Amino acid sequence: MEPIKPYKKGVDYSYTLGAFPTIELLKCHPECVREVYVHSTFTDTETIESLCKKNNIPIRTSDKTISRLSDKENCFVIGVFDKYIEELRADKPHIVLVNPSNMGNLGTILRTATAMGIYDIAIITPAVDEYHPKTVRASMGALFRLRHECFTSFQEYRLKYPEQEVFCFMLTGERQLTVSDVPKPALFSLVFGNEATGLPEEFADYGQSIIIPQSKNVDSLNLTIAVGIGSYMFMQGRIE
Amino acid sequence: MEPIKPYKKGVDYSYTLGAFPTIELLKCHPECVREVYVHSTFTDTETIESLCKKNNIPIRTSDKTISRLSDKENCFVIGVFDKYIEELRADKPHIVLVNPSNMGNLGTILRTATAMGIYDIAIITPAVDEYHPKTVRASMGALFRLRHECFTSFQEYRLKYPEQEVFCFMLTGERQLTVSDVPKPALFSLVFGNEATGLPEEFADYGQSIIIPQSKNVDSLNLTIAVGIGSYMFMQGRIE
Repeated sequence: MEPIKPYKKGVDYSYTLGAFPTIELLKCHPECVREVYVHSTFTDTETIESLCKKNNIPIRTSDKTISRLSDKENCFVIGVFDKYIEELRADKPHIVLVNPSNMGNLGTILRTATAMGIYDIAIITPAVDEYHPKTVRASMGALFRLRHECFTSFQEYRLKYPEQEVFCFMLTGERQLTVSDVPKPALFSLVFGNEATGLPEEFADYGQSIIIPQSKNVDSLNLTIAVGIGSYMFMQGRIE
Repeated sequence: MEPIKPYKKGVDYSYTLGAFPTIELLKCHPECVREVYVHSTFTDTETIESLCKKNNIPIRTSDKTISRLSDKENCFVIGVFDKYIEELRADKPHIVLVNPSNMGNLGTILRTATAMGIYDIAIITPAVDEYHPKTVRASMGALFRLRHECFTSFQEYRLKYPEQEVFCFMLTGERQLTVSDVPKPALFSLVFGNEATGLPEEFADYGQSIIIPQSKNVDSLNLTIAVGIGSYMFMQGRIE
Protein backbone atom coordinates (compact mmCIF):
# COMPACT_ATOMS: atom_id res chain seq x y z
CA MET A 1 0.00 0.00 0.00
CA GLU A 2 1.59 3.23 -1.10
CA PRO A 3 1.34 6.11 1.40
CA ILE A 4 -0.96 8.92 0.32
CA LYS A 5 0.91 12.01 -0.86
CA PRO A 6 0.11 15.65 0.00
CA TYR A 7 -2.35 17.12 -2.50
CA LYS A 8 -1.21 18.61 -5.76
CA LYS A 9 -3.38 19.98 -8.54
CA GLY A 10 -3.77 17.37 -11.23
CA VAL A 11 -3.87 14.26 -9.05
CA ASP A 12 -7.03 12.15 -9.30
CA TYR A 13 -7.76 12.11 -5.56
CA SER A 14 -8.22 14.60 -2.74
CA TYR A 15 -8.99 14.38 0.97
CA THR A 16 -11.12 15.85 3.70
CA LEU A 17 -9.45 17.31 6.79
CA GLY A 18 -11.45 16.83 9.97
CA ALA A 19 -14.27 14.62 11.26
CA PHE A 20 -17.22 16.75 10.14
CA PRO A 21 -16.35 16.99 6.42
CA THR A 22 -15.28 13.34 6.42
CA ILE A 23 -18.71 12.31 7.72
CA GLU A 24 -20.34 14.46 5.01
CA LEU A 25 -18.17 12.70 2.43
CA LEU A 26 -19.07 9.25 3.77
CA LYS A 27 -22.78 10.09 3.80
CA CYS A 28 -22.98 11.72 0.36
CA HIS A 29 -20.33 9.97 -1.76
CA PRO A 30 -19.30 6.71 -0.07
CA GLU A 31 -18.66 5.16 -3.50
CA CYS A 32 -15.71 7.56 -4.00
CA VAL A 33 -13.94 7.02 -0.68
CA ARG A 34 -10.66 5.08 -0.85
CA GLU A 35 -9.83 5.01 2.84
CA VAL A 36 -10.19 6.92 6.08
CA TYR A 37 -7.34 7.77 8.46
CA VAL A 38 -7.93 8.43 12.14
CA HIS A 39 -5.52 9.70 14.77
CA SER A 40 -4.72 7.34 17.62
CA THR A 41 -6.07 9.88 20.15
CA PHE A 42 -9.42 10.25 18.37
CA THR A 43 -12.18 8.58 20.36
CA ASP A 44 -15.48 9.73 18.86
CA THR A 45 -15.25 7.10 16.11
CA GLU A 46 -18.72 5.54 16.21
CA THR A 47 -20.34 7.39 13.28
CA ILE A 48 -17.27 7.10 11.09
CA GLU A 49 -16.77 3.42 11.87
CA SER A 50 -20.35 2.54 11.13
CA LEU A 51 -20.38 4.48 7.84
CA CYS A 52 -17.10 2.86 6.76
CA LYS A 53 -18.27 -0.61 7.71
CA LYS A 54 -21.53 -0.20 5.81
CA ASN A 55 -19.63 0.82 2.69
CA ASN A 56 -16.62 -1.51 3.01
CA ILE A 57 -14.18 1.37 3.38
CA PRO A 58 -10.91 0.66 5.20
CA ILE A 59 -10.11 2.70 8.34
CA ARG A 60 -6.46 3.07 9.25
CA THR A 61 -4.93 4.54 12.38
CA SER A 62 -1.92 6.60 11.33
CA ASP A 63 -0.77 9.70 13.20
CA LYS A 64 2.06 10.05 10.72
CA THR A 65 -0.25 10.25 7.69
CA ILE A 66 -2.44 12.83 9.39
CA SER A 67 0.44 15.06 10.42
CA ARG A 68 1.86 14.81 6.89
CA LEU A 69 -1.39 15.84 5.20
CA SER A 70 -2.70 18.44 7.65
CA ASP A 71 -1.05 21.67 8.73
CA LYS A 72 -3.49 22.15 11.60
CA GLU A 73 -3.06 20.49 14.96
CA ASN A 74 -6.76 19.89 15.55
CA CYS A 75 -7.25 17.50 12.61
CA PHE A 76 -7.92 13.93 13.73
CA VAL A 77 -9.66 12.40 10.73
CA ILE A 78 -8.87 12.39 7.02
CA GLY A 79 -10.94 10.85 4.25
CA VAL A 80 -9.19 10.11 0.96
CA PHE A 81 -11.50 10.10 -2.06
CA ASP A 82 -11.45 9.86 -5.82
CA LYS A 83 -12.47 13.03 -7.60
CA TYR A 84 -15.72 12.62 -9.49
CA ILE A 85 -17.47 14.40 -12.33
CA GLU A 86 -21.05 15.59 -12.05
CA GLU A 87 -23.66 17.41 -14.06
CA LEU A 88 -26.02 20.05 -12.72
CA ARG A 89 -29.75 19.46 -12.51
CA ALA A 90 -31.36 21.31 -15.43
CA ASP A 91 -34.59 21.80 -13.50
CA LYS A 92 -33.07 23.49 -10.43
CA PRO A 93 -31.78 26.99 -9.60
CA HIS A 94 -28.05 27.50 -10.16
CA ILE A 95 -25.26 29.67 -8.85
CA VAL A 96 -22.63 30.50 -11.48
CA LEU A 97 -19.19 31.58 -10.24
CA VAL A 98 -17.08 33.27 -12.89
CA ASN A 99 -13.35 32.82 -12.18
CA PRO A 100 -13.38 32.53 -8.38
CA SER A 101 -9.79 33.00 -7.19
CA ASN A 102 -9.75 32.21 -3.48
CA MET A 103 -10.19 28.70 -2.10
CA GLY A 104 -11.50 29.88 1.27
CA ASN A 105 -14.15 31.98 -0.49
CA LEU A 106 -15.15 29.14 -2.81
CA GLY A 107 -15.56 26.79 0.15
CA THR A 108 -17.61 29.37 2.09
CA ILE A 109 -19.81 29.92 -0.97
CA LEU A 110 -20.47 26.18 -1.32
CA ARG A 111 -21.44 26.04 2.35
CA THR A 112 -23.67 29.11 2.00
CA ALA A 113 -25.37 27.82 -1.15
CA THR A 114 -26.19 24.57 0.64
CA ALA A 115 -27.57 26.51 3.62
CA MET A 116 -29.77 28.50 1.25
CA GLY A 117 -30.99 25.44 -0.59
CA ILE A 118 -29.20 25.96 -3.90
CA TYR A 119 -27.54 22.66 -4.76
CA ASP A 120 -26.20 23.29 -8.27
CA ILE A 121 -23.03 25.30 -8.76
CA ALA A 122 -21.41 26.10 -12.10
CA ILE A 123 -17.77 27.19 -12.03
CA ILE A 124 -16.36 29.07 -15.01
CA THR A 125 -12.62 28.46 -15.37
CA PRO A 126 -9.93 29.65 -14.86
CA ALA A 127 -10.81 29.18 -11.23
CA VAL A 128 -9.33 27.82 -8.04
CA ASP A 129 -9.47 24.07 -7.55
CA GLU A 130 -12.81 23.03 -6.04
CA TYR A 131 -11.24 19.75 -4.92
CA HIS A 132 -8.28 21.30 -3.12
CA PRO A 133 -8.32 20.20 0.55
CA LYS A 134 -8.45 23.89 1.57
CA THR A 135 -11.63 24.43 -0.46
CA VAL A 136 -13.16 21.23 0.90
CA ARG A 137 -12.32 22.26 4.47
CA ALA A 138 -13.74 25.79 4.02
CA SER A 139 -16.92 24.22 2.63
CA MET A 140 -17.22 22.07 5.79
CA GLY A 141 -17.99 19.20 3.42
CA ALA A 142 -20.80 21.06 1.64
CA LEU A 143 -18.99 20.22 -1.62
CA PHE A 144 -20.39 16.70 -1.24
CA ARG A 145 -23.95 17.87 -0.59
CA LEU A 146 -24.30 19.68 -3.89
CA ARG A 147 -23.59 19.17 -7.56
CA HIS A 148 -20.86 21.16 -9.28
CA GLU A 149 -19.77 21.38 -12.89
CA CYS A 150 -16.94 23.31 -14.55
CA PHE A 151 -17.13 25.18 -17.87
CA THR A 152 -14.53 27.05 -19.86
CA SER A 153 -16.91 29.93 -20.60
CA PHE A 154 -20.28 31.33 -19.59
CA GLN A 155 -21.47 30.60 -23.13
CA GLU A 156 -20.62 26.92 -22.74
CA TYR A 157 -22.63 26.82 -19.50
CA ARG A 158 -25.54 28.66 -21.09
CA LEU A 159 -25.71 26.36 -24.12
CA LYS A 160 -26.06 23.37 -21.84
CA TYR A 161 -28.50 25.02 -19.41
CA PRO A 162 -30.63 27.51 -21.38
CA GLU A 163 -33.78 27.35 -19.24
CA GLN A 164 -32.66 29.37 -16.21
CA GLU A 165 -33.48 33.07 -16.09
CA VAL A 166 -30.12 34.81 -15.68
CA PHE A 167 -29.34 37.43 -13.00
CA CYS A 168 -25.88 39.00 -13.06
CA PHE A 169 -24.67 40.64 -9.83
CA MET A 170 -22.73 43.78 -10.79
CA LEU A 171 -21.85 47.09 -9.19
CA THR A 172 -23.35 48.67 -12.30
CA GLY A 173 -26.52 46.57 -11.95
CA GLU A 174 -29.72 48.13 -13.26
CA ARG A 175 -32.09 46.63 -10.75
CA GLN A 176 -31.73 47.05 -6.99
CA LEU A 177 -32.30 43.89 -4.98
CA THR A 178 -34.60 44.98 -2.14
CA VAL A 179 -37.37 43.54 0.00
CA SER A 180 -39.93 45.52 -1.99
CA ASP A 181 -38.62 44.20 -5.31
CA VAL A 182 -37.57 40.56 -5.00
CA PRO A 183 -37.51 38.78 -8.36
CA LYS A 184 -39.49 35.54 -8.24
CA PRO A 185 -38.45 33.53 -11.29
CA ALA A 186 -39.42 29.86 -11.40
CA LEU A 187 -35.90 28.85 -12.44
CA PHE A 188 -32.83 31.05 -12.20
CA SER A 189 -29.06 31.36 -12.41
CA LEU A 190 -27.37 33.82 -10.06
CA VAL A 191 -24.08 34.88 -11.65
CA PHE A 192 -21.17 36.32 -9.63
CA GLY A 193 -17.76 37.54 -10.81
CA ASN A 194 -14.22 37.28 -9.54
CA GLU A 195 -13.33 38.67 -6.07
CA ALA A 196 -11.13 41.47 -7.37
CA THR A 197 -12.69 42.37 -10.69
CA GLY A 198 -16.37 41.42 -10.53
CA LEU A 199 -18.20 40.53 -13.73
CA PRO A 200 -17.04 42.00 -17.05
CA GLU A 201 -19.43 44.63 -18.44
CA GLU A 202 -20.74 42.33 -21.21
CA PHE A 203 -22.60 40.29 -18.60
CA ALA A 204 -25.17 43.10 -18.49
CA ASP A 205 -26.31 41.69 -21.86
CA TYR A 206 -26.49 38.09 -20.67
CA GLY A 207 -29.37 38.65 -18.29
CA GLN A 208 -30.89 41.05 -15.78
CA SER A 209 -28.07 42.98 -14.10
CA ILE A 210 -28.70 43.42 -10.41
CA ILE A 211 -27.06 45.21 -7.49
CA ILE A 212 -27.31 44.74 -3.74
CA PRO A 213 -27.75 48.27 -2.31
CA GLN A 214 -24.61 49.28 -0.39
CA SER A 215 -23.04 52.42 1.00
CA LYS A 216 -20.35 54.33 -0.87
CA ASN A 217 -17.99 53.89 2.06
CA VAL A 218 -16.56 50.57 0.90
CA ASP A 219 -15.34 49.56 -2.54
CA SER A 220 -17.80 46.64 -2.68
CA LEU A 221 -19.29 43.82 -0.69
CA ASN A 222 -17.13 40.75 -0.18
CA LEU A 223 -18.02 38.09 -2.80
CA THR A 224 -19.17 35.54 -0.22
CA ILE A 225 -21.53 38.08 1.39
CA ALA A 226 -22.99 39.00 -1.99
CA VAL A 227 -23.66 35.33 -2.77
CA GLY A 228 -25.19 34.91 0.70
CA ILE A 229 -27.59 37.84 0.34
CA GLY A 230 -28.44 37.03 -3.28
CA SER A 231 -29.19 33.37 -2.56
CA TYR A 232 -31.17 34.25 0.56
CA MET A 233 -33.39 36.69 -1.31
CA PHE A 234 -34.02 34.51 -4.36
CA MET A 235 -34.75 31.41 -2.27
CA GLN A 236 -37.32 33.10 0.00
CA GLY A 237 -39.96 30.58 0.99
CA ARG A 238 -38.44 27.66 -0.86
CA ILE A 239 -35.41 26.45 1.07
CA GLU A 240 -35.45 22.65 1.13
CA MET B 1 14.17 57.20 15.01
CA GLU B 2 13.55 53.69 16.25
CA PRO B 3 12.46 51.21 13.58
CA ILE B 4 8.86 50.07 13.93
CA LYS B 5 8.54 46.55 15.29
CA PRO B 6 6.22 43.79 14.05
CA TYR B 7 2.86 43.97 15.80
CA LYS B 8 2.25 42.32 19.13
CA LYS B 9 -0.90 42.45 21.21
CA GLY B 10 -0.53 45.09 23.90
CA VAL B 11 1.52 47.64 21.96
CA ASP B 12 -0.07 51.08 21.58
CA TYR B 13 0.23 51.25 17.80
CA SER B 14 -0.74 49.17 14.80
CA TYR B 15 -0.40 49.49 11.03
CA THR B 16 -2.26 49.14 7.78
CA LEU B 17 -0.91 46.82 5.09
CA GLY B 18 -1.56 48.05 1.57
CA ALA B 19 -2.43 51.29 -0.19
CA PHE B 20 -6.23 51.06 0.05
CA PRO B 21 -6.52 50.65 3.84
CA THR B 22 -3.76 53.23 4.34
CA ILE B 23 -5.74 55.78 2.34
CA GLU B 24 -8.83 54.97 4.42
CA LEU B 25 -6.77 55.54 7.57
CA LEU B 26 -5.41 58.86 6.28
CA LYS B 27 -8.89 60.05 5.31
CA CYS B 28 -10.72 59.00 8.49
CA HIS B 29 -8.12 59.27 11.29
CA PRO B 30 -5.20 61.42 10.11
CA GLU B 31 -4.67 62.65 13.69
CA CYS B 32 -3.60 59.11 14.71
CA VAL B 33 -1.07 58.45 11.95
CA ARG B 34 2.58 58.40 13.01
CA GLU B 35 4.17 57.80 9.64
CA VAL B 36 3.66 56.14 6.27
CA TYR B 37 6.13 53.78 4.60
CA VAL B 38 6.17 53.27 0.85
CA HIS B 39 8.13 50.76 -1.20
CA SER B 40 10.67 52.18 -3.62
CA THR B 41 8.87 50.53 -6.56
CA PHE B 42 5.48 52.05 -5.66
CA THR B 43 4.54 54.75 -8.13
CA ASP B 44 0.88 55.60 -7.54
CA THR B 45 1.75 57.90 -4.64
CA GLU B 46 -0.27 61.01 -5.46
CA THR B 47 -3.25 60.46 -3.12
CA ILE B 48 -1.09 59.28 -0.25
CA GLU B 49 1.40 62.10 -0.66
CA SER B 50 -1.26 64.75 -0.74
CA LEU B 51 -3.07 63.34 2.33
CA CYS B 52 0.22 63.11 4.26
CA LYS B 53 1.27 66.61 3.29
CA LYS B 54 -2.08 68.08 4.33
CA ASN B 55 -1.78 66.44 7.75
CA ASN B 56 1.97 66.85 8.30
CA ILE B 57 2.57 63.12 8.32
CA PRO B 58 6.07 61.91 7.37
CA ILE B 59 6.42 59.54 4.40
CA ARG B 60 9.45 57.29 4.34
CA THR B 61 10.70 55.04 1.58
CA SER B 62 11.88 51.79 3.17
CA ASP B 63 11.68 48.44 1.43
CA LYS B 64 13.25 46.85 4.50
CA THR B 65 10.52 48.07 6.87
CA ILE B 66 7.79 46.88 4.52
CA SER B 67 9.26 43.41 4.06
CA ARG B 68 9.72 43.14 7.83
CA LEU B 69 6.11 44.04 8.63
CA SER B 70 4.27 42.34 5.77
CA ASP B 71 4.22 38.67 4.91
CA LYS B 72 2.64 39.30 1.51
CA GLU B 73 4.63 40.25 -1.52
CA ASN B 74 2.04 42.63 -2.92
CA CYS B 75 2.17 45.13 -0.05
CA PHE B 76 3.72 48.45 -1.06
CA VAL B 77 2.37 50.87 1.54
CA ILE B 78 2.16 50.71 5.32
CA GLY B 79 0.60 53.31 7.62
CA VAL B 80 1.64 53.25 11.28
CA PHE B 81 -0.98 54.65 13.66
CA ASP B 82 -1.70 55.08 17.36
CA LYS B 83 -4.60 53.01 18.61
CA TYR B 84 -7.51 55.17 19.71
CA ILE B 85 -10.54 54.71 21.92
CA GLU B 86 -14.03 55.54 20.73
CA GLU B 87 -17.61 55.44 21.95
CA LEU B 88 -20.58 54.32 19.90
CA ARG B 89 -23.31 56.72 18.85
CA ALA B 90 -26.27 56.17 21.18
CA ASP B 91 -28.73 57.28 18.50
CA LYS B 92 -27.62 54.85 15.78
CA PRO B 93 -28.16 51.14 15.06
CA HIS B 94 -25.47 48.82 16.44
CA ILE B 95 -23.99 45.44 15.69
CA VAL B 96 -22.87 43.55 18.80
CA LEU B 97 -20.30 40.78 18.34
CA VAL B 98 -20.04 38.41 21.29
CA ASN B 99 -16.57 36.85 21.52
CA PRO B 100 -15.57 36.86 17.84
CA SER B 101 -12.57 34.55 17.52
CA ASN B 102 -11.24 34.93 13.99
CA MET B 103 -9.47 38.06 12.76
CA GLY B 104 -10.37 37.51 9.13
CA ASN B 105 -14.03 37.19 10.05
CA LEU B 106 -13.97 40.28 12.26
CA GLY B 107 -12.40 42.31 9.45
CA THR B 108 -14.94 41.03 6.92
CA ILE B 109 -17.77 41.89 9.33
CA LEU B 110 -16.46 45.45 9.75
CA ARG B 111 -16.33 45.82 5.96
CA THR B 112 -19.83 44.37 5.59
CA ALA B 113 -21.30 46.56 8.33
CA THR B 114 -19.88 49.62 6.61
CA ALA B 115 -21.33 48.49 3.28
CA MET B 116 -24.73 48.07 4.91
CA GLY B 117 -24.60 51.46 6.61
CA ILE B 118 -24.16 50.30 10.21
CA TYR B 119 -21.29 52.34 11.64
CA ASP B 120 -21.34 51.35 15.33
CA ILE B 121 -19.89 48.02 16.44
CA ALA B 122 -19.75 46.73 19.99
CA ILE B 123 -17.30 43.92 20.70
CA ILE B 124 -17.80 41.78 23.80
CA THR B 125 -14.49 40.40 25.06
CA PRO B 126 -12.78 37.97 25.14
CA ALA B 127 -12.40 38.59 21.43
CA VAL B 128 -9.71 38.78 18.79
CA ASP B 129 -7.79 42.02 18.54
CA GLU B 130 -9.65 44.54 16.36
CA TYR B 131 -6.40 46.46 15.85
CA HIS B 132 -4.34 43.49 14.70
CA PRO B 133 -2.95 44.20 11.22
CA LYS B 134 -4.70 41.04 9.95
CA THR B 135 -8.08 42.35 11.13
CA VAL B 136 -7.38 45.79 9.67
CA ARG B 137 -6.37 44.23 6.35
CA ALA B 138 -9.45 41.98 6.20
CA SER B 139 -11.61 45.05 6.90
CA MET B 140 -9.98 46.82 3.93
CA GLY B 141 -9.70 49.83 6.22
CA ALA B 142 -13.41 49.82 7.15
CA LEU B 143 -12.25 49.80 10.80
CA PHE B 144 -11.50 53.51 10.33
CA ARG B 145 -14.89 54.31 8.78
CA LEU B 146 -16.89 53.16 11.77
CA ARG B 147 -16.90 53.48 15.55
CA HIS B 148 -16.09 50.48 17.71
CA GLU B 149 -16.15 49.99 21.46
CA CYS B 150 -15.21 46.98 23.62
CA PHE B 151 -17.11 45.71 26.65
CA THR B 152 -16.39 42.91 29.08
CA SER B 153 -20.01 41.70 29.04
CA PHE B 154 -23.27 42.17 27.18
CA GLN B 155 -24.72 43.65 30.37
CA GLU B 156 -22.04 46.34 30.44
CA TYR B 157 -22.86 47.23 26.83
CA ARG B 158 -26.58 47.29 27.57
CA LEU B 159 -26.27 49.53 30.62
CA LYS B 160 -24.49 52.10 28.52
CA TYR B 161 -26.78 51.79 25.47
CA PRO B 162 -30.27 50.88 26.69
CA GLU B 163 -32.29 52.51 23.90
CA GLN B 164 -31.67 50.00 21.10
CA GLU B 165 -34.23 47.25 20.53
CA VAL B 166 -32.25 43.99 20.81
CA PHE B 167 -32.32 41.17 18.23
CA CYS B 168 -30.30 38.05 18.99
CA PHE B 169 -29.37 35.81 16.06
CA MET B 170 -29.63 32.20 17.23
CA LEU B 171 -30.21 28.79 15.66
CA THR B 172 -33.00 28.42 18.22
CA GLY B 173 -34.45 31.82 17.27
CA GLU B 174 -38.21 32.23 17.67
CA ARG B 175 -38.80 34.58 14.78
CA GLN B 176 -37.82 33.78 11.21
CA LEU B 177 -36.19 36.63 9.33
CA THR B 178 -37.98 36.69 5.97
CA VAL B 179 -39.02 39.19 3.32
CA SER B 180 -42.62 38.94 4.52
CA ASP B 181 -41.65 39.64 8.14
CA VAL B 182 -38.84 42.19 8.33
CA PRO B 183 -38.66 43.90 11.73
CA LYS B 184 -38.59 47.69 11.34
CA PRO B 185 -37.43 49.08 14.69
CA ALA B 186 -36.38 52.73 14.81
CA LEU B 187 -33.21 51.85 16.68
CA PHE B 188 -31.73 48.37 17.05
CA SER B 189 -28.83 46.17 18.13
CA LEU B 190 -28.14 43.04 16.09
CA VAL B 191 -26.35 40.56 18.34
CA PHE B 192 -24.22 37.69 16.97
CA GLY B 193 -22.31 34.98 18.84
CA ASN B 194 -18.96 33.31 18.45
CA GLU B 195 -18.11 31.43 15.21
CA ALA B 196 -18.05 27.99 16.80
CA THR B 197 -20.58 28.23 19.61
CA GLY B 198 -23.10 30.91 18.64
CA LEU B 199 -24.91 32.84 21.37
CA PRO B 200 -25.49 31.19 24.75
CA GLU B 201 -29.14 30.28 25.37
CA GLU B 202 -29.70 33.09 27.90
CA PHE B 203 -29.55 35.62 25.07
CA ALA B 204 -33.09 34.54 24.17
CA ASP B 205 -34.11 36.55 27.26
CA TYR B 206 -32.12 39.65 26.30
CA GLY B 207 -34.23 40.51 23.28
CA GLN B 208 -36.11 39.07 20.31
CA SER B 209 -34.39 35.85 19.23
CA ILE B 210 -34.26 35.55 15.47
CA ILE B 211 -33.14 32.98 12.92
CA ILE B 212 -32.23 33.25 9.25
CA PRO B 213 -34.06 30.37 7.52
CA GLN B 214 -31.55 27.76 6.33
CA SER B 215 -31.53 24.17 5.16
CA LYS B 216 -30.74 21.28 7.47
CA ASN B 217 -27.87 20.24 5.21
CA VAL B 218 -25.26 22.44 6.91
CA ASP B 219 -24.54 22.90 10.60
CA SER B 220 -25.10 26.66 10.34
CA LEU B 221 -24.42 29.71 8.25
CA ASN B 222 -20.94 31.19 8.47
CA LEU B 223 -20.93 34.10 10.97
CA THR B 224 -19.94 36.70 8.37
CA ILE B 225 -22.82 35.63 6.08
CA ALA B 226 -25.30 35.82 8.97
CA VAL B 227 -24.14 39.36 9.80
CA GLY B 228 -24.38 40.28 6.11
CA ILE B 229 -27.94 39.03 5.70
CA GLY B 230 -29.08 40.41 9.06
CA SER B 231 -27.65 43.88 8.41
CA TYR B 232 -29.00 43.94 4.87
CA MET B 233 -32.52 43.11 6.01
CA PHE B 234 -32.64 45.51 8.95
CA MET B 235 -31.14 48.38 6.95
CA GLN B 236 -33.62 48.12 4.04
CA GLY B 237 -34.27 51.56 2.62
CA ARG B 238 -31.95 53.41 4.95
CA ILE B 239 -28.37 52.76 3.88
CA GLU B 240 -26.44 56.03 4.06
